[in-house]
Amino acid sequence: MSAGTEAPQASAHEEQAMLRALELAAKGPARGVNPRVGCVILDADGTVLAEGWHRGAGTPHAEVDALSRLAPGAARGATAVVSLEPCNHTGRTGPCAVALLEAGVDRVVFAVDDPGHHSGGGAERLRDGGVTVVGGVLTGPAEDLLGDWLTSARLGRPLVTVKWASSLDGRIAASDGTSRWITGDAARDDVHRRRAAHDAILVGTGTVLADDPSLTARDDHGDLLPEQPRPVVMGDRPIPRDAAVHRHPRPVVVHHGHDPAALLAELRAAGVRSVFIEGGPTIATAFLRAGLADTVLTYLAPVLLGGPRLAIGDLGVDTIGEAIRLTTVGVEPLGDDLLVITAPDRSASASAAHDLTA
Amino acid sequence: MSAGTEAPQASAHEEQAMLRALELAAKGPARGVNPRVGCVILDADGTVLAEGWHRGAGTPHAEVDALSRLAPGAARGATAVVSLEPCNHTGRTGPCAVALLEAGVDRVVFAVDDPGHHSGGGAERLRDGGVTVVGGVLTGPAEDLLGDWLTSARLGRPLVTVKWASSLDGRIAASDGTSRWITGDAARDDVHRRRAAHDAILVGTGTVLADDPSLTARDDHGDLLPEQPRPVVMGDRPIPRDAAVHRHPRPVVVHHGHDPAALLAELRAAGVRSVFIEGGPTIATAFLRAGLADTVLTYLAPVLLGGPRLAIGDLGVDTIGEAIRLTTVGVEPLGDDLLVITAPDRSASASAAHDLTA
Repeated sequence: MSAGTEAPQASAHEEQAMLRALELAAKGPARGVNPRVGCVILDADGTVLAEGWHRGAGTPHAEVDALSRLAPGAARGATAVVSLEPCNHTGRTGPCAVALLEAGVDRVVFAVDDPGHHSGGGAERLRDGGVTVVGGVLTGPAEDLLGDWLTSARLGRPLVTVKWASSLDGRIAASDGTSRWITGDAARDDVHRRRAAHDAILVGTGTVLADDPSLTARDDHGDLLPEQPRPVVMGDRPIPRDAAVHRHPRPVVVHHGHDPAALLAELRAAGVRSVFIEGGPTIATAFLRAGLADTVLTYLAPVLLGGPRLAIGDLGVDTIGEAIRLTTVGVEPLGDDLLVITAPDRSASASAAHDLTA
Repeated sequence: MSAGTEAPQASAHEEQAMLRALELAAKGPARGVNPRVGCVILDADGTVLAEGWHRGAGTPHAEVDALSRLAPGAARGATAVVSLEPCNHTGRTGPCAVALLEAGVDRVVFAVDDPGHHSGGGAERLRDGGVTVVGGVLTGPAEDLLGDWLTSARLGRPLVTVKWASSLDGRIAASDGTSRWITGDAARDDVHRRRAAHDAILVGTGTVLADDPSLTARDDHGDLLPEQPRPVVMGDRPIPRDAAVHRHPRPVVVHHGHDPAALLAELRAAGVRSVFIEGGPTIATAFLRAGLADTVLTYLAPVLLGGPRLAIGDLGVDTIGEAIRLTTVGVEPLGDDLLVITAPDRSASASAAHDLTA
């Protein structure tokens, strides 16, 4: 961004147009397979010719939406200002890079590189077509707007939060399996708020059979919060017809099998950007062991239980050098309980993410 | 303490003398079987006739020390101001209550009731002998001075701190037993400071054989701190001749057997007021299960280990209603680690304490 750089810079008009493109992008859906993107077409004087934004999967991308508002030939020599790098991918719609080239656009200004392995490369394609391309304009606000979509696109899978509530000695229940209540009201409210902030909530069939959870996000009166995560159940055991999860406002997704990566790929394809994993221990352990956790939430109650009901099972850590090292993101007292928020060190989770995006 | 009470009150002279008695008491040894006690003898006008304090087990008690500085008969009609209720117990010295009666003291003012089952009852004996007795004068500062002695006298056993350092999922080592280092420097320094503040440090023979700990309290350069806890090893397996614990500056105490209460009784008789229990899991679990822990220190490292090496074993908690409920006293970040300080709820530990003092 320094004055002496040789790369082309965005003009003041273009920066202004990018702010408008971000406003347009925000009109799109915050959840789903596709990102929120806005586009403004400017003429050579910086006058706005057209605006567009993406309304969700199956509808035109922002660039195409904007171009569609112009008469044929009207975009010749114009500048497209768009909040995400134009895609280079033929899906339900053609590549936006090609649409811009065909419209005769002279210059493209964008905010955030498209991290997608299939959709990326639009800037290069445009340059190859003789278009001047300026990236990295207002990247910060554009990334904020993209949120989980961007992170999951970079990871090549949904963001994963693994949560458990245990005693100080790492147990989730007494020997006979009873566990109501280890943590208190404040911790439970916090869990429900976090459920609502995720696209999906995952448990194993064992937890469904043992605890019959509703997998809904509720307020402290027990009423449903406005946002509900999709309930997902993983495993091979049949779910009883009268299980509480069937009364969830959204239909339950059942994933047979035990491969965390396969489940995440399936959920990503279904537009899930973030998964909240609530157990049981087998599921939590499987995701941690596979390096497929981005955030670990440990709710600790001031209780000791001892016995065999452990929050986490065998992580395959044979010797201390193989320990799963975490970075502490925060520690929050919640009533009598303590929430410890950690994130696996990047070096550990990065390799697993690469496996998925390969 | 209200003005309208019928109980006798201490005069201003006597309160002044009590402050002096506390100064005298502080000259005595802060550790050992006996408490620090000071005594001032006043004549009827409030003039100081003599002062005394206790210098440790086998030496005269404070009252006797003070009386010994007076000519025979000089204490007749005098007032004894003493920081702890005069004892009613014949040990290596006779009961102070009797010594005061025989000296002809008219009035006794004291700060703290003697909670000892053997030594208590001195006030009653004095009253029976016609002496005016005023208790509860400057109780707060006097209790502070007595410190661990008072608490352990009330419990009828040494104060017990159970400490462990674990991963967030409650493990103390990887599957192969390796554990260096789960917690970081700040946590280790904190442990050493706390070791130095305890009279004794306890581990099981299993820990001696597995880890060969020195059981010393060291500063961050590895040099010995001025105060060293007595090293105590519990269990039946023989300790190797070349074990590090034999190089501890204080001789190691070996307690055969596995009964926490029996060990505490033995340590108390040896003048130990506070024990710092560092494991292993068998010892920690045994003390927690017996309700013989007053403080629980959990050092949590941002690490996940899984596997079989648990900090705490079977606590006999069959169902959730039997959980050992704790009160959180404090949470301290120590570098990347977290120290959670808890205390078992009184209702749980009180019964065990009564068993020991019966």
